[in-house]
Amino acid sequence: MASLNQRVPSYLKAIAPYQPGKPIADIARAYGFQEDQVVKLASNENPLGMSPKGREAMLEAAADLGRYPDGNGFALKQALSKKFGLDPATITLGNGSNDILELVAHAFLAPGKESLMSDHSFAVYALASQAVGATIVSVPAKPDDLGHDLQGFKQRITEKTSVVWIANPNNPTGSFISAAELEAFIAELPATVLVVLDEAYTEYLSEQDSYPAFEWARRYPNLLVSRSFSKAYGLAGLRVGYGVASAEVTDLLNRVRQPFNVNSLALAAASASLFDDEFLTRSAALNRQGMEQIQKGIQALGVGWLESWGNFLLIDLRAVQPDQPQAGQKVYEALLSKGVITRPVANYGLAGFLRVSIGTFDENQSFLKAMPFALEMLRGSTDSGSSLAPASSTASVSSKTAAVRA
Amino acid sequence: MASLNQRVPSYLKAIAPYQPGKPIADIARAYGFQEDQVVKLASNENPLGMSPKGREAMLEAAADLGRYPDGNGFALKQALSKKFGLDPATITLGNGSNDILELVAHAFLAPGKESLMSDHSFAVYALASQAVGATIVSVPAKPDDLGHDLQGFKQRITEKTSVVWIANPNNPTGSFISAAELEAFIAELPATVLVVLDEAYTEYLSEQDSYPAFEWARRYPNLLVSRSFSKAYGLAGLRVGYGVASAEVTDLLNRVRQPFNVNSLALAAASASLFDDEFLTRSAALNRQGMEQIQKGIQALGVGWLESWGNFLLIDLRAVQPDQPQAGQKVYEALLSKGVITRPVANYGLAGFLRVSIGTFDENQSFLKAMPFALEMLRGSTDSGSSLAPASSTASVSSKTAAVRA
Repeated sequence: MASLNQRVPSYLKAIAPYQPGKPIADIARAYGFQEDQVVKLASNENPLGMSPKGREAMLEAAADLGRYPDGNGFALKQALSKKFGLDPATITLGNGSNDILELVAHAFLAPGKESLMSDHSFAVYALASQAVGATIVSVPAKPDDLGHDLQGFKQRITEKTSVVWIANPNNPTGSFISAAELEAFIAELPATVLVVLDEAYTEYLSEQDSYPAFEWARRYPNLLVSRSFSKAYGLAGLRVGYGVASAEVTDLLNRVRQPFNVNSLALAAASASLFDDEFLTRSAALNRQGMEQIQKGIQALGVGWLESWGNFLLIDLRAVQPDQPQAGQKVYEALLSKGVITRPVANYGLAGFLRVSIGTFDENQSFLKAMPFALEMLRGSTDSGSSLAPASSTASVSSKTAAVRA
Repeated sequence: MASLNQRVPSYLKAIAPYQPGKPIADIARAYGFQEDQVVKLASNENPLGMSPKGREAMLEAAADLGRYPDGNGFALKQALSKKFGLDPATITLGNGSNDILELVAHAFLAPGKESLMSDHSFAVYALASQAVGATIVSVPAKPDDLGHDLQGFKQRITEKTSVVWIANPNNPTGSFISAAELEAFIAELPATVLVVLDEAYTEYLSEQDSYPAFEWARRYPNLLVSRSFSKAYGLAGLRVGYGVASAEVTDLLNRVRQPFNVNSLALAAASASLFDDEFLTRSAALNRQGMEQIQKGIQALGVGWLESWGNFLLIDLRAVQPDQPQAGQKVYEALLSKGVITRPVANYGLAGFLRVSIGTFDENQSFLKAMPFALEMLRGSTDSGSSLAPASSTASVSSKTAAVRA
């Protein structure tokens, strides 16, 4: 490998793989719990699981798994077309929306090109950009909501900017950009810059906050809208997402797409889930109730949070123990010992915060019940010889590249 | 897009997407058949479908699809480790072995690097190489079996050669390289060249032809062995494969791998299928019987073929109608009209041939029953104004790049 290694570009060797939320089985093994004693609020999944209509269609498709999937995803594209009035030629199907993000990086980024993203945004934007050798330009977050500063984005557009990544709502901050502000930003961008509008959490928006992103994709040839079936539709385990863009961008993405990137069961389940409005409504309602439940609970504990438009909440621990720069990690570890998996977000430049997904009523209660213990552990801890800067400064200003390598 | 387009490298725009075997549903739609009237012998799938043990494990895992898959594939790596004595740190899991091939291209190829492959080899080697801008060097096939000419490979190794792709058995020719010849070739290669040994069809080899590829992967740090669950294991619809290489190469591939590239059901089904020896034995036996059945049948029709070590047969149509340079396409179309899907291989530089997968006894009979009509259509056809060169010359000498763009 020494000899092989010298041929590998240094930007690849510098990649630290994505750190997923811990699987329940891992934590049960490590802490000696039964699997059903463990509560996972770590990966923004739908606590109701998958849509019943999706499950039914999946089991029907399970009869024929010896065959390759339909590489063109005819039925799912037809379903998306029927549901949203989309031209199938503008749809790219992905092995999760993660796959769509990677296809964009492969097609539009390369060494010498710049990839623009907010300080605290989904780790895969940076990973996918780094994997193709592009230069990551991280835009400092807005101080109030730690979300996208679109003025800051504009100021950093250069001749080399090729892709701009915007998640709305944003993960892990939960922040939201209004339709008017977002469209004005897209409309003003140079035509040579592709905007990826990542709408993984869009199904959780109220009707009032919703906006016609697919209409924008028709209007702006440099806009790609990405959507996921892993969140509100509850198909995270099956892997399926999609991108909507101009036919030209779509054609290009399909050239770099793996021929059978989406499996047969995901195709079937997604096609049916699209029309399970009852399930989607029920999932969004459960999320609203759970969001309120968790906010009330942590408010009673004297802890703050950032307002969230997603199915998760970013809890602000900076004031609980100002001498502890790794507050999120400390609370995360204490909760783990109680069988509750949440997500520390130091790798997002947010070491003073903890992200918790909204679960069922009972899951949320387990989290809230374990929190007093975790906060006690945090209050009793101090920075023991760590060389890290104080939480209050690292939390919101550490750069994306540093975060990804942490 | 015009403005975006100018930023996209020309090698991406030149890619012609992979042409998969036609799905049964498409043909039924186009020709007005019922789906159960159509026979598909086009994608080298297992006609028995998936392993019963795999199905059972899959249905059990289907209870929890709202959760993300285990991104590290702990259980499947443990199963592979138990089955083959592999160190889990040497295993990369892929969304089909196609994914493994793409990861190799992303990590080890780039503009200015050379990617070496045989004239008639799996289309994805060229597609994945082209997608990262590498130079494709196509090695003329051996005249006898149209398979890999390893002497020819050696002569084309340069300072720029980064990846050498060898499939054994080879698709679409069915040819096979003996263990001794193959290991000698690998041992002599410069340490800076990564060999990808694609063993998608290895489960169809007789015990006598088998060789210890995983031992080689331990011995040669520049060897990656790729395996698939899509062929003998019958899991094509679920998408799962794996690569075995040094821990260092594996670490690098995992840096460019999508965090949740393999879905939960594929992980579960593959883990269980590995231990379904009865199913694998039955599948290989059915293949041997079917191979004999088809060979006898086409011999009776006076048509030749290339000896095959896989689960498919490359039928040589060049002598049937020498004036028809697109013999494979003509027979393919005639068979389609009878509801039998096979695979024309002009895009592999083999316009005078037709690839047929080995199916069940009844499926093979349907194919053989339709062949006299198809051959009659071929005999009655001539090159009508096409500008293509005669079949006898294009069939075995057209270059890989030309083939992929065809």
